[in-house]
Amino acid sequence: MRDFLPEDVRRREYVIGVIKRVYERYGFEPLETPAVENLETLMGKYGEEGNQLIFKILKRGEHEASGQADLALRYDLTVPLARVIAHHQAKLPKLFKRYQIQPVWRADRPARGRFREFYQCDVDALGSTSPVIEAELCVAVSDVLTALKFDDFEVRLNHRQVLAAWLTRLLVPDDRHGAFLIALDKLDKVGVEGVVEELGQRGFDKKTQIAFRNTIGAVDKAEFLEWHKSRSWADIGGAAFDNLIRIRDLVQGTSAEGRLRFEPSLARGLSYYTGAIMELNVPDLAGSLGGGGRYDNLVGMFLGQNVPACGFSLGLERILVVMAERGMFPEGLATTPADVMVAVFDAADAPHAVRVASALRAAGLRVLVYPDADKIGKQIKYADGVGIPFVAILGSDEIAKGTVTVKHLSAQTQHTYDQMAAGAAILEGLKPRG
Amino acid sequence: MRDFLPEDVRRREYVIGVIKRVYERYGFEPLETPAVENLETLMGKYGEEGNQLIFKILKRGEHEASGQADLALRYDLTVPLARVIAHHQAKLPKLFKRYQIQPVWRADRPARGRFREFYQCDVDALGSTSPVIEAELCVAVSDVLTALKFDDFEVRLNHRQVLAAWLTRLLVPDDRHGAFLIALDKLDKVGVEGVVEELGQRGFDKKTQIAFRNTIGAVDKAEFLEWHKSRSWADIGGAAFDNLIRIRDLVQGTSAEGRLRFEPSLARGLSYYTGAIMELNVPDLAGSLGGGGRYDNLVGMFLGQNVPACGFSLGLERILVVMAERGMFPEGLATTPADVMVAVFDAADAPHAVRVASALRAAGLRVLVYPDADKIGKQIKYADGVGIPFVAILGSDEIAKGTVTVKHLSAQTQHTYDQMAAGAAILEGLKPRG
Repeated sequence: MRDFLPEDVRRREYVIGVIKRVYERYGFEPLETPAVENLETLMGKYGEEGNQLIFKILKRGEHEASGQADLALRYDLTVPLARVIAHHQAKLPKLFKRYQIQPVWRADRPARGRFREFYQCDVDALGSTSPVIEAELCVAVSDVLTALKFDDFEVRLNHRQVLAAWLTRLLVPDDRHGAFLIALDKLDKVGVEGVVEELGQRGFDKKTQIAFRNTIGAVDKAEFLEWHKSRSWADIGGAAFDNLIRIRDLVQGTSAEGRLRFEPSLARGLSYYTGAIMELNVPDLAGSLGGGGRYDNLVGMFLGQNVPACGFSLGLERILVVMAERGMFPEGLATTPADVMVAVFDAADAPHAVRVASALRAAGLRVLVYPDADKIGKQIKYADGVGIPFVAILGSDEIAKGTVTVKHLSAQTQHTYDQMAAGAAILEGLKPRG
Repeated sequence: MRDFLPEDVRRREYVIGVIKRVYERYGFEPLETPAVENLETLMGKYGEEGNQLIFKILKRGEHEASGQADLALRYDLTVPLARVIAHHQAKLPKLFKRYQIQPVWRADRPARGRFREFYQCDVDALGSTSPVIEAELCVAVSDVLTALKFDDFEVRLNHRQVLAAWLTRLLVPDDRHGAFLIALDKLDKVGVEGVVEELGQRGFDKKTQIAFRNTIGAVDKAEFLEWHKSRSWADIGGAAFDNLIRIRDLVQGTSAEGRLRFEPSLARGLSYYTGAIMELNVPDLAGSLGGGGRYDNLVGMFLGQNVPACGFSLGLERILVVMAERGMFPEGLATTPADVMVAVFDAADAPHAVRVASALRAAGLRVLVYPDADKIGKQIKYADGVGIPFVAILGSDEIAKGTVTVKHLSAQTQHTYDQMAAGAAILEGLKPRG
């Protein structure tokens, strides 16, 4: 697990801030849940592997010696959402749109870009089956990426019922759909023959492999939907095709127009999806920047009554990796402890430094008061070393006259201002040059 | 542990936002550490009671069955800071000023205003022994409270070496100072005779009790420092007196002027303080809103080399309790999912609703698209029920003309605008009335 030093936090908060602002524009409201859930709430929700990866918390006090766990760390943000819906239903609007940006913990082996503590940025809408929900999720995600200055992303789209119709026509039994989809999901990475090979390894017979090769072989991804519709399984998956076409129509004239691509191999790992599924991709990242879909049955596991739901989860850590590699963080993002450092010649004059700092702060500046009466050269060198662009110097002359001398370190210039006017002058000097 | 529903999160984020902005003005930089620390990092740092209250995490995988713990949840933000200084010293500036606002976990019995998961808002400056550090902490905290519209707070101040000098003159042995201070810390609540009684219960003899009563008896708190200095222990604690006077002088002309009060009974519970100690109080709260002080030896426990340090911890949960009781949250704080809801008469017109919503969002509004084609009256009733002030209605007439009809629900007025002009009109309508 990682410590986030100031530069890390600033970059993370910049991205999180953009995500929040966009999601709030879409009527999503913030929700936060505790890091700790009852162990029984989480167990069995993420499959056998998930059970292994949950961090479990020892009982306390006299029960500690039992070695038993009763609590666990949050593993994702979806199960806590379902629990919240069940607990607080009376207080929540019928159409509940929430975003949640919090860490989750998985006892995974750490690897590049994979951490045991990492943030999820989830957005979910509960209470409607309308494709307007899916469409607006695609538009909101496109708005986020656009606001972060990505210009080469795409939102891949597929539908669990389209996949099911196809697999039914390939005579794959219902209970083998999951295994088939795991192989199909790798089409992008391993190609058609790679998928055929994996199907064999997973116990699908030659006939199924050939039927798969025949149906996928000629697909032009851009025309995927039309291709699918022209096939013999269109009659089974008709409503699902219509749903996808409706989503596409709904985003015309928005930031998601031209970003949606129907992807026949997109399957998404989670078993709870029931309708449209989505994934966010950029060309230079093998994995995705996020994904989501419709899951109309999950909340029912907690509430005993189904609530239609659809959500999208952005992978903050991966977005940060790509932005760092591409140098996409805005110039205006602070990389220094302060805009200006106040230096004094004499410890006895420190009260003046604190007062001048107050005035500069009131003007909107981030101000560090150098606390010790070191030699002035050492103080200036310190500011330069940590990247503070301006130093405000108070010598006996300045103090007597109510002025302050402001040095711009990189420009090697200095001016003397009235103490009350210095803030505005420094703010002006901080503006990026055209 | 608590779920924070949207209104809770908005209030918490408002307060956290104010705290961050103020602290950044003082050159404090953000730091975040993992929720999970090695168990051995935390054990023994918080006393015997603390060891009991630490949430401990079971080993994973094959070791899970051992019932042993190797990790633990963060218990405060100070020990992780000391660990960060030790791990990352080379990357940190010599004068490291950081703020950290994150949850901590204690397996305490929950009570009113006390939770097992709660936020700490810590600010610490490492690397200087100058009283400018203490003074600026007092000013920063005063700025925070002022920005939150508190007008009746005070920052109580004392000094561990002043207390030590006093106790030395009372002939309290060094190893009994801690016990004495616990009794003294209650002076505000139980009065002089209450403290005398507790001293007796804690095994201090009559002579010490009488000496205490004699020295404390006549103190006028406003003149505390002068009173202390006039006493026979001034010669032992001289530097500490000077330090307190220096802090008072340094805050003249700032938001902390007139807020500082020397408090002879202030002792603070933590054993690691070595110098000035501070506490933030308001009249209507028995406990404090925060506290801090100088601790020059703690980092040395991790680094093997002492680093002078001084910090202040604001109690977010208590600040929120007082602000809620006093109704101090700003009117502008959002309490609804959106500023405007877009309604449609016909499901086939939903693409128009999504596009109009995009235009309203681009104007800066928070917009909910009602996803289902329910009867228009039901849609409007929904908006009213969740407190959305405006409804934008798209009927066939509006769609044909490129307009939108905007209803202001509480005013019971409606106007029709060009779709591109509606955003500005609604923004105008949202402004609080003078």
